[in-house]
Amino acid sequence: MSKTVGKIGHERLEKQLNFIIEIDKVKNIVRRSRLFDGSRFENDAEHSWTICVMALLLKEYSDFSINLERVLSMLLIHDIVEIDAGDTFLYASERPNAHADEKKAAERIFGLLDEDQRNYFMELWEEFEAGETNDAKFASVFDRLEPLMQNYILEGAGWKSHNVTYDMVIEKNKHIIENASKEIWDFVLKVLDIAVDRGYLKKL
Amino acid sequence: MSKTVGKIGHERLEKQLNFIIEIDKVKNIVRRSRLFDGSRFENDAEHSWTICVMALLLKEYSDFSINLERVLSMLLIHDIVEIDAGDTFLYASERPNAHADEKKAAERIFGLLDEDQRNYFMELWEEFEAGETNDAKFASVFDRLEPLMQNYILEGAGWKSHNVTYDMVIEKNKHIIENASKEIWDFVLKVLDIAVDRGYLKKL
Repeated sequence: MSKTVGKIGHERLEKQLNFIIEIDKVKNIVRRSRLFDGSRFENDAEHSWTICVMALLLKEYSDFSINLERVLSMLLIHDIVEIDAGDTFLYASERPNAHADEKKAAERIFGLLDEDQRNYFMELWEEFEAGETNDAKFASVFDRLEPLMQNYILEGAGWKSHNVTYDMVIEKNKHIIENASKEIWDFVLKVLDIAVDRGYLKKL
Repeated sequence: MSKTVGKIGHERLEKQLNFIIEIDKVKNIVRRSRLFDGSRFENDAEHSWTICVMALLLKEYSDFSINLERVLSMLLIHDIVEIDAGDTFLYASERPNAHADEKKAAERIFGLLDEDQRNYFMELWEEFEAGETNDAKFASVFDRLEPLMQNYILEGAGWKSHNVTYDMVIEKNKHIIENASKEIWDFVLKVLDIAVDRGYLKKL
């Protein structure tokens, strides 16, 4: 546990700000993807900011109606479980306990809040994880689109260093992106064809 | 200008993703405030993420009704003008051209988008800057509350190194925070009293 605000005389706000201090740790959780300028790896807070802006900017491409406030809320908090559970790389072999670890992390971290807000955030996080509602489906698009475009712009840097092939990219992203936006998925397919042509991505 | 996505065959999406790549530069704009663990200075993307989570978490304290989707949208994009105009430190002596520089930056950066989105984001950014609507007033609270709490948790590190006094903190924050949330302002006053007692902040 980090330093806390201590007793100020407003227990609910103290808890809420202690939660803000605790989740600040995502700024030290480093992802496998680099910034678009290639200068360094991105952290979870930066990633969350970018995919929120993407959702705001690209909401017109959703194949169904969405509630942007809920989409943004999910994206803002979706990765804070990685404070305890660590980053799960999309193309890594399965970690059998990843979801259980993340659920435990969610319970601890959201458990810093009063019960009403703990329940609200637990449900929001579980909705995102399950990916079944329209809002969760649309939110997930950007969690996939950002690293994909980072890899494309950086000439396949991450794909190459992790031996990711075209078929793997399709397998891990198609159902998520196509499920919520056929137009974005069509664009991604064109991007991947160019990536293969230019040797950024191997097609076996 | 950064690397761009090039011709993919969907001009609008190309522009939108080029905008995302361009605004990625805020991840290299370093603020005067440190992360809550004190380990390093925060960048604008991380700051924007935190204040979005704050707005989501603390919306119950607004003294008037707000549209959280619009509040979050403002907070997501409020600092991207600093890519061209640089960070403006709250307690610095006035930079006479700061607003003009920022407006020029907004025009260039939002100008990367098609006209409908350029206009939407320019208006949203100007609304935040003017601070007159309920959504803008409530959004501004968190732009002030985050560095204030960072300073408190880090025992006044930033206040001390910039010779910021109690009166300066009151002068720069009272009208913004009290104007939108009397409850948060009351909490801040208690925090500042403790900060003075403990020697984190000088009261002349």
